[in-house]
Amino acid sequence: MARLRVHNLAVSIDGFATGEGQSFEAPFGHAGHRLMQWFFPTRAFVAMSGHESEAVGAGTRGVDDAFAAATTVGIGAEIMGRRKFGPHEGPWEDESWRGWWGEEPPFHSPVVVLTHHERPDLAVGETTFHFRELPPVEALELAASLAGGLDVRLGGGPTAVRDFLAADLVDHLHIVVVPIVLGRGVRLWDGLEGLEERFSVEVTPSPSGVVHYVFTRLS
Amino acid sequence: MARLRVHNLAVSIDGFATGEGQSFEAPFGHAGHRLMQWFFPTRAFVAMSGHESEAVGAGTRGVDDAFAAATTVGIGAEIMGRRKFGPHEGPWEDESWRGWWGEEPPFHSPVVVLTHHERPDLAVGETTFHFRELPPVEALELAASLAGGLDVRLGGGPTAVRDFLAADLVDHLHIVVVPIVLGRGVRLWDGLEGLEERFSVEVTPSPSGVVHYVFTRLS
Repeated sequence: MARLRVHNLAVSIDGFATGEGQSFEAPFGHAGHRLMQWFFPTRAFVAMSGHESEAVGAGTRGVDDAFAAATTVGIGAEIMGRRKFGPHEGPWEDESWRGWWGEEPPFHSPVVVLTHHERPDLAVGETTFHFRELPPVEALELAASLAGGLDVRLGGGPTAVRDFLAADLVDHLHIVVVPIVLGRGVRLWDGLEGLEERFSVEVTPSPSGVVHYVFTRLS
Repeated sequence: MARLRVHNLAVSIDGFATGEGQSFEAPFGHAGHRLMQWFFPTRAFVAMSGHESEAVGAGTRGVDDAFAAATTVGIGAEIMGRRKFGPHEGPWEDESWRGWWGEEPPFHSPVVVLTHHERPDLAVGETTFHFRELPPVEALELAASLAGGLDVRLGGGPTAVRDFLAADLVDHLHIVVVPIVLGRGVRLWDGLEGLEERFSVEVTPSPSGVVHYVFTRLS
């Protein structure tokens, strides 16, 4: 069975994975870019953001980059919540929305988008988005069947991650704790009391001020 | 003016500084000893717990001990919330309660106990407890006047720490993040959005799995 992995999920020190007031202009709400500022300077992000030709070799290569670079290794499919695909709610009234990522999304693999509202599969560049209403275990089965024997990445948002953690389906959970107090938004840890009993935990601080937590599910 | 310092305040990764269901038998509620397990093996705690004669030199001497040992250095008085002094609520019906610490409390300095209910000053060993109803700024003024030119420690609990942080009276804040998900209890960070803008932050992980955060107020 494919392993299910979460990478680069940033939370504030008070446990919010995104701020309040999400919108098209502010995907992280009032948090702005503050939860991901450790990520942007990394070589992995610079390459991923599609400017390779200008930026070969650009970006940092420290521990933040090491974690960022692991994001894509051995991944054959992604599962994401609908809000990661776009800011809309309710039925798909505007199918011209093809995601945030332009005509060459960075996934290069099938993506299962969890939604309560039907929409035909959508191919954009090398990525095909499969819109499905499925409980976590069935979403993982579908993504695993699309992953060609590789692992599945659970790409967020925080509500989707919480649902899959509650269902005990996550094998690898990489959390990045950012030393800011957000105060409001979407809490990652709610409903997950005692989570640590099902995982081993490794903690690595970065000179950038964030702390990387790797939770590995006990077999 | 005396500096106000918080030491060894442990929170779960979801931000709870104590669990739910506090009582005489369970001062940390359902959290039990889990928030302070990093602390108990340290040489500083072993010495503080009053068994020096049996335990000279006993205990760990790593980074957890280094932080624990800093707790008492240069401190001339403590401020604590009433729940740290005892599990009672309302008027003092039973003045035979003289704190958790027996006849030689570990403070060896004046202690201001914040309470809405009057009680005469109480001397126990080298420690005198002053029971007062005071807003944070006045409590700090009183404690500073008792501290003989040294610093004042804010000993908790989390609600008291939050109140003094909201009033911007804390100069040094040492937080210990424990990699457990408590799920319920008293949250430390509520109402403190943007706290990081008033502090510099230094992060140090321990082999014990906890992460020490030192917030130093920007002058």
